[in-house]
Amino acid sequence: MPADGPSDGDVIDTPAGLGSALERVAAEIDRHFDLLLEVPDDARGRLYAAMRHAAIGGGKRLRPLLVCAACDLFHVDRMAAMRVATAIECIHVYSLIHDDLPCMDDDDVRRGKPTVHKAFDEATAVLAGDALHAVAFEILADDSTHADPFVRIELVAELARASGPAGMAGGQAMDLAAETESFDLPTVTRLQQLKTGALIGFCLEAGAIMGHVPPEGRGRLRAYARDVGLAFQIVDDLLDVEGDAETTGKAVGKDAAAGKATFVSLLGQERARQQAEMLVEQAISHLAGFGQEADLLRAVAAYVIERDR
Amino acid sequence: MPADGPSDGDVIDTPAGLGSALERVAAEIDRHFDLLLEVPDDARGRLYAAMRHAAIGGGKRLRPLLVCAACDLFHVDRMAAMRVATAIECIHVYSLIHDDLPCMDDDDVRRGKPTVHKAFDEATAVLAGDALHAVAFEILADDSTHADPFVRIELVAELARASGPAGMAGGQAMDLAAETESFDLPTVTRLQQLKTGALIGFCLEAGAIMGHVPPEGRGRLRAYARDVGLAFQIVDDLLDVEGDAETTGKAVGKDAAAGKATFVSLLGQERARQQAEMLVEQAISHLAGFGQEADLLRAVAAYVIERDR
Repeated sequence: MPADGPSDGDVIDTPAGLGSALERVAAEIDRHFDLLLEVPDDARGRLYAAMRHAAIGGGKRLRPLLVCAACDLFHVDRMAAMRVATAIECIHVYSLIHDDLPCMDDDDVRRGKPTVHKAFDEATAVLAGDALHAVAFEILADDSTHADPFVRIELVAELARASGPAGMAGGQAMDLAAETESFDLPTVTRLQQLKTGALIGFCLEAGAIMGHVPPEGRGRLRAYARDVGLAFQIVDDLLDVEGDAETTGKAVGKDAAAGKATFVSLLGQERARQQAEMLVEQAISHLAGFGQEADLLRAVAAYVIERDR
Repeated sequence: MPADGPSDGDVIDTPAGLGSALERVAAEIDRHFDLLLEVPDDARGRLYAAMRHAAIGGGKRLRPLLVCAACDLFHVDRMAAMRVATAIECIHVYSLIHDDLPCMDDDDVRRGKPTVHKAFDEATAVLAGDALHAVAFEILADDSTHADPFVRIELVAELARASGPAGMAGGQAMDLAAETESFDLPTVTRLQQLKTGALIGFCLEAGAIMGHVPPEGRGRLRAYARDVGLAFQIVDDLLDVEGDAETTGKAVGKDAAAGKATFVSLLGQERARQQAEMLVEQAISHLAGFGQEADLLRAVAAYVIERDR
């Protein structure tokens, strides 16, 4: 790191730098979705409109930022990074659409807008999620994402694993079970590692894959992802208790109403927040071997507990 | 073709040969799903049980058979063919689970069993479909499916396209629109080419991809798939009018009740059947350049109009 470079502390204390990175990534993601989801001139218009409603404008775009930040470590081409970031956001958006369905969380508001089944209808919401799910893999498989087929196929394998029954979908199934079973802290931790952790892990893994880092060299990034992912979820649980619907852009107080065990119900608010802070410190410590090229990842870790939405 | 080999006519007139091929593929698919969907000893048990309920035991396994038959043309390794066949069946089963949901077709019976949302619940049905969707890509990306990453990534790209908004999901969106709009014959044809044709096309394309046939050499197989896919759908429409629920294993009379334009409502039963027969003849004619290695594909084409479920 050059002597006049920013220290970790500087970057973490400078949300303006992170803020502009978030804004830039958010604008790029919107632009990508706008091109990707051009409405065809046939009876599929409503499907595409629903996909656009869910995908464009809104959301923290935390996962795309993590992909870009991980790619920065290994000087990965920005366009390749953005395409993979768009793919992961397709998966995230599809999961939100399905999660909001009446038979799941039954939410009316998401990212400050009506949920897809509210703005359109349930059948269209199911299909819009399914379609975005497929589009994610279409993007990853396309040779304009990365010239090397070994890189593309590893991205596909990792994303499928992270979003399937051994990852996100499995975590959501555990979340359903949490409504009727009393989970202890290790089980809630495992639930969240699957439900949100696996996809956040993929964001970091994707940077390493595109940076041609072999699996045995990804330990620190995986550890960072694990800690940031858990901290993120603890803060989500805290916002569900402490936040308001207007700021978070979604309904709050849902976990308590559903009687679900969460980090907050098991630890209490104060210990939950301490745990999140400890995890973020620990996440940043995993990056000690990197120089200022990891400053964005450090800033993201700090943002995860400072955020109010 | 050896002098004592079966002629095309022999094979088509010998449903026993096709019957045993179908039975063998069905048994292999069940065995693959049984291994693939081993129930984990945690709170995801219900999700896996739902996936197994939908995936194992039942169904014609027409798509896996088509993959195997296409692979036969190019002497593709049987294990590779079966893995791709399992992946495509994952996509087909996920689409049936979501299609049967109350907000979509609202069906109670599928393959002679209660649909997933009936045997389990709606939320689990949404997740089981989503999980199988991801598993399909996990299978294709795995290097035990095919050693060549170029082959695997092309399979992923084609399956994502065939199942996404430009394929199956797009066709289902048009199908929703068909409930309120009056579609003409070209539009219904286009709808069905997306809804069922794209995935059937992938089955043939997969054989060509694994057989290292370049895209410009796949014209006849694509033409075969297009004709067989349309004939298949016309027969589906006929079975919805003429069939009974016990034999077909699903509810009948749904299209007329929903007031949807179908091949049968637009052409009448007699002309629809004639059209299906013409398409099957035409499909078989596209295989004229092949010898007895294409006999199974010829038999499948004939089966498509002879079937009663």
